[in-house]
Amino acid sequence: MRLPVSQARLRPGIIELAQGYPAAGALPVAAWAQAVAGGLREYGSDALMYGHPTGPGPLLRWLCDRLGAADGRVIRPGEVFVTAGASHALELVASLVLRPGDAVLVDSPTYHLALRVLADHARLVPAPADEHGLLPDETAKLLDALRAKGVRVPLLYLVPTYNNPTGGCLPQQRRLALVRLARRRGLLLVEDDTYRELAYDAPAPRSLYGLAEAGEVIRLGSFAKTVAPGIRLGFLCATEEFVARLADRGYVDSGGGVNHTNAVAMGWFGGTGAYDEHLGRVRERYRYRRDSLVRAVAEHLPAARFAVPAGGWFLWLRLSGVDTGALLPVAERHGVGYLPGARCFLPGAAGPAQEYLRLSFSMVAPELFAEGIRRLAAAVVEAQSVRSGV
Amino acid sequence: MRLPVSQARLRPGIIELAQGYPAAGALPVAAWAQAVAGGLREYGSDALMYGHPTGPGPLLRWLCDRLGAADGRVIRPGEVFVTAGASHALELVASLVLRPGDAVLVDSPTYHLALRVLADHARLVPAPADEHGLLPDETAKLLDALRAKGVRVPLLYLVPTYNNPTGGCLPQQRRLALVRLARRRGLLLVEDDTYRELAYDAPAPRSLYGLAEAGEVIRLGSFAKTVAPGIRLGFLCATEEFVARLADRGYVDSGGGVNHTNAVAMGWFGGTGAYDEHLGRVRERYRYRRDSLVRAVAEHLPAARFAVPAGGWFLWLRLSGVDTGALLPVAERHGVGYLPGARCFLPGAAGPAQEYLRLSFSMVAPELFAEGIRRLAAAVVEAQSVRSGV
Repeated sequence: MRLPVSQARLRPGIIELAQGYPAAGALPVAAWAQAVAGGLREYGSDALMYGHPTGPGPLLRWLCDRLGAADGRVIRPGEVFVTAGASHALELVASLVLRPGDAVLVDSPTYHLALRVLADHARLVPAPADEHGLLPDETAKLLDALRAKGVRVPLLYLVPTYNNPTGGCLPQQRRLALVRLARRRGLLLVEDDTYRELAYDAPAPRSLYGLAEAGEVIRLGSFAKTVAPGIRLGFLCATEEFVARLADRGYVDSGGGVNHTNAVAMGWFGGTGAYDEHLGRVRERYRYRRDSLVRAVAEHLPAARFAVPAGGWFLWLRLSGVDTGALLPVAERHGVGYLPGARCFLPGAAGPAQEYLRLSFSMVAPELFAEGIRRLAAAVVEAQSVRSGV
Repeated sequence: MRLPVSQARLRPGIIELAQGYPAAGALPVAAWAQAVAGGLREYGSDALMYGHPTGPGPLLRWLCDRLGAADGRVIRPGEVFVTAGASHALELVASLVLRPGDAVLVDSPTYHLALRVLADHARLVPAPADEHGLLPDETAKLLDALRAKGVRVPLLYLVPTYNNPTGGCLPQQRRLALVRLARRRGLLLVEDDTYRELAYDAPAPRSLYGLAEAGEVIRLGSFAKTVAPGIRLGFLCATEEFVARLADRGYVDSGGGVNHTNAVAMGWFGGTGAYDEHLGRVRERYRYRRDSLVRAVAEHLPAARFAVPAGGWFLWLRLSGVDTGALLPVAERHGVGYLPGARCFLPGAAGPAQEYLRLSFSMVAPELFAEGIRRLAAAVVEAQSVRSGV
């Protein structure tokens, strides 16, 4: 039996626009080996020892400088905790904050695998939203109604910047309203900020974390999209008290920093400027892919409605009158894959969830986009002709 | 402020025999950089992609061959899950198996930080033990009594091989009795097998996992002691069904293999034979340190009773009539550190817990052992003279 190394399995003949995986060519194969070697050279055995529980000093310092500049606030090293990826950060927050029987509010649509992380810990309730994202006033009403019934609702999870799957950014007025809501209602906002650095047209909007007071927002960050998913490195920003509680978790106390050697390497990668150079190239590459996919959809699937995302990896298409779940096997027969929109909503979500689909432009080579969208268009035609009995 | 990189903080003037940290010189600084570079060279972008959830194929295959030979049973790749260290393995098992209100049986004394990992999930109950380790019959009686009271007791945690802190191995008859007990009572044994590879006199005894039938034992392994703690790599062996449940955990599904790039590097390190070469040197080094510390204690602290450990990192001393908790500040004033034995027992453990102390011979340079033990002996004399009012 041949055992797989990674999850990058391509089905022959299928243009895979479903997976939110990076482009193989964007992964810093040589540069990461240099970063690990650099960290080991600079810190010697300290880079292999039990790590400082919240992360190695050099990475924390670099993160604080970089994030503080983007957020417009001073971030202290004690407010940052280095994690084994953003999903692990979410798992840690959920483990600490949630108790069985709790409900969690989630943006809708949202990152479908975050739903799975959270569902390991609590019951999920979709927050009201329209095509521009979460609706703060309606969310406040829902929260009040849940709490009036005695349900504990400690947190709300959302991806406000270059959302997965929609690619959109929550408008500034809603960001401010949401932070006010969090403050007044004692609701913790968990801001998944994974795509911030992949901004193609202008700097990313200010984070909720940057707009809020201490304790209102936990921001999750990741190097999975900018460096590589396999290195399992991310971070979170929270209060010093929360970070101290994470560091005091039994298995962190026992094992030390949760991904120490890689975190030291990342500190080297960041501190030497190699990360910024790499990021510039990665941004260029994904910007080109976004533009290519946008053109391909406009040309070959004009019935699809979508907003051009200013960052991230995804195009969120609406095909009026199409059930994208039923369409998928037809599309795969035509040789193209995508993520049906319903996967990004909780089961039974109201509205036209099934008319949406997510295309990822991150992994597939852009010269295949036009062919992929032609196949998708052909699948739509076939499905519609079957349905109408033509 | 200078932020620390790792946890390797030495207090000036103190010979630190408390920490179970590796020798800095035993850490493969150059070799690990080569392993990462080797993995990246061999697997390219696959080494940086989202990893196969249970671990990359090459590492799983190498582990199955190696462990299967030691255990005397065939281990299939589907029975292994690569973790971010043994503590993380324990956290994963606890997350999946334990529910609030459960009780967990733990060997006594045991690894003090495992107590913290488990205490995040359940109430801990010490299993009856004598100086040779856990007593199966008495443990069965305790288990029955707990269950008769309606307490759910899903698992028992122990370090049967080169125990932390005692250095001892559970005798073969007790291993067999314990496995029978697990089978008959439906009790899951969690075998922390972290020190197996650090065998100094003879091959390590067969694991509980090797003696048991499928589903009776989960074995936790680690590369923290043999390679480096900072790389955060370990594994567990369980049933295919249990491994599948771990892979299906939300944050594993979202992030892929929990430490993919390092796991690929470890597969390279193992597969090329570099690990075996390194392990040979490491074993030699720690064997020498064990012998040196044993000589130093025999010479300079003859009142201490202990068994010479055949593996692992620790010497477990009993000082009759001494309270090692009260002694610690005196010892540190004399310039030597150790772990008071009571830290390895649950609070309120019966017996002479406070007469024990754990010395680690892994981190401190062996030429300091004699001086460290002389200081400890001087502290004992001082403490006893104070107590007796001399």
